[in-house]
Amino acid sequence: MEKNKGKSRHKILETAGELFKSQGYHATGLNQIIKESGAPKGSIYHYFPGGKEELAIESIKLAVEKVKEGLIDNLSRYSEPLKSIEELLKKMADEFNPHNPYHGLSINMLAMETSLISEPLRCACLEAFKTWENIFYDKLIEGGFSPEDAEDLGMTIHFLVEGAVALSLVRQDNKPFLIVSRQIRKLLNKNT
Amino acid sequence: MEKNKGKSRHKILETAGELFKSQGYHATGLNQIIKESGAPKGSIYHYFPGGKEELAIESIKLAVEKVKEGLIDNLSRYSEPLKSIEELLKKMADEFNPHNPYHGLSINMLAMETSLISEPLRCACLEAFKTWENIFYDKLIEGGFSPEDAEDLGMTIHFLVEGAVALSLVRQDNKPFLIVSRQIRKLLNKNT
Repeated sequence: MEKNKGKSRHKILETAGELFKSQGYHATGLNQIIKESGAPKGSIYHYFPGGKEELAIESIKLAVEKVKEGLIDNLSRYSEPLKSIEELLKKMADEFNPHNPYHGLSINMLAMETSLISEPLRCACLEAFKTWENIFYDKLIEGGFSPEDAEDLGMTIHFLVEGAVALSLVRQDNKPFLIVSRQIRKLLNKNT
Repeated sequence: MEKNKGKSRHKILETAGELFKSQGYHATGLNQIIKESGAPKGSIYHYFPGGKEELAIESIKLAVEKVKEGLIDNLSRYSEPLKSIEELLKKMADEFNPHNPYHGLSINMLAMETSLISEPLRCACLEAFKTWENIFYDKLIEGGFSPEDAEDLGMTIHFLVEGAVALSLVRQDNKPFLIVSRQIRKLLNKNT
């Protein structure tokens, strides 16, 4: 019984995440989530009393955790920050598939859509960005960068990776990852 | 008569652009555009036989021209590329208003939403990004950068400006523009 409940909650959240990813926040309605997840209407409000906003916040949290794990895992393979970031970008370039260019929910897209209309969603997106920037920050601190440089560079690397993801989708090629990698080399060499 | 026709077309396009900006592509329907623009139903298909997709493409073109004019105008104030880009970012930081953080349609958001489902929209977004990157490219070439460096840096500056716009919206402050400005100084000094 408890297991089924967990499954039902998971199924609703998974369906909502897929819809937010493919259509965005505004175009996704609770009725569509109910229909596509196959969950009874009442169970959405049971598990997510905050409705669509709460579902979006939970979807963001799931996406953040997934990206966070991947980032930490990849960056831990080399002790030197530059080498580890270059290898991360090389991996992103190698794995880029123009027919299926990204698997995850775009927090950037949700942020642009919702930051002006929902304070809880704006905060969830801000938290997501901070989490990722902090992973780069920690890696740079480990590598001997000053806190000031590590903070600026953490944000900058985040922007460059995000930009490369978006442009590779639109260009349908992996060149942006390679260009970004060369620029990060310049920025990090400059600071070491 | 001709003047009214022009007005009606303009009103439809303006309404569509506002809706794409605030809700995104998927959530915006032709019926809402008809209702909010006050245009007769038939006139949308008269002016935009391609329907919503054509309206989005035309909205992107309008947004591109607006940003392009602003960029060229700002970058032409100083002959030196770094100085002109620093002043552009300073202006963006000064003009940042947390309650009304951006005025234009986010091509990035539309690109994330539509690149996988509409080839004409993907191409319109790609054209938009190329147009902006080329403005930075031209400025850097004028300033003596090699074509290879200018191309990489044009894309990089685009990512950093785009990232700063998105994060300033989510943070509700203008700090990202100032951080990005310092990083661009490093990247451009390195190349001169």
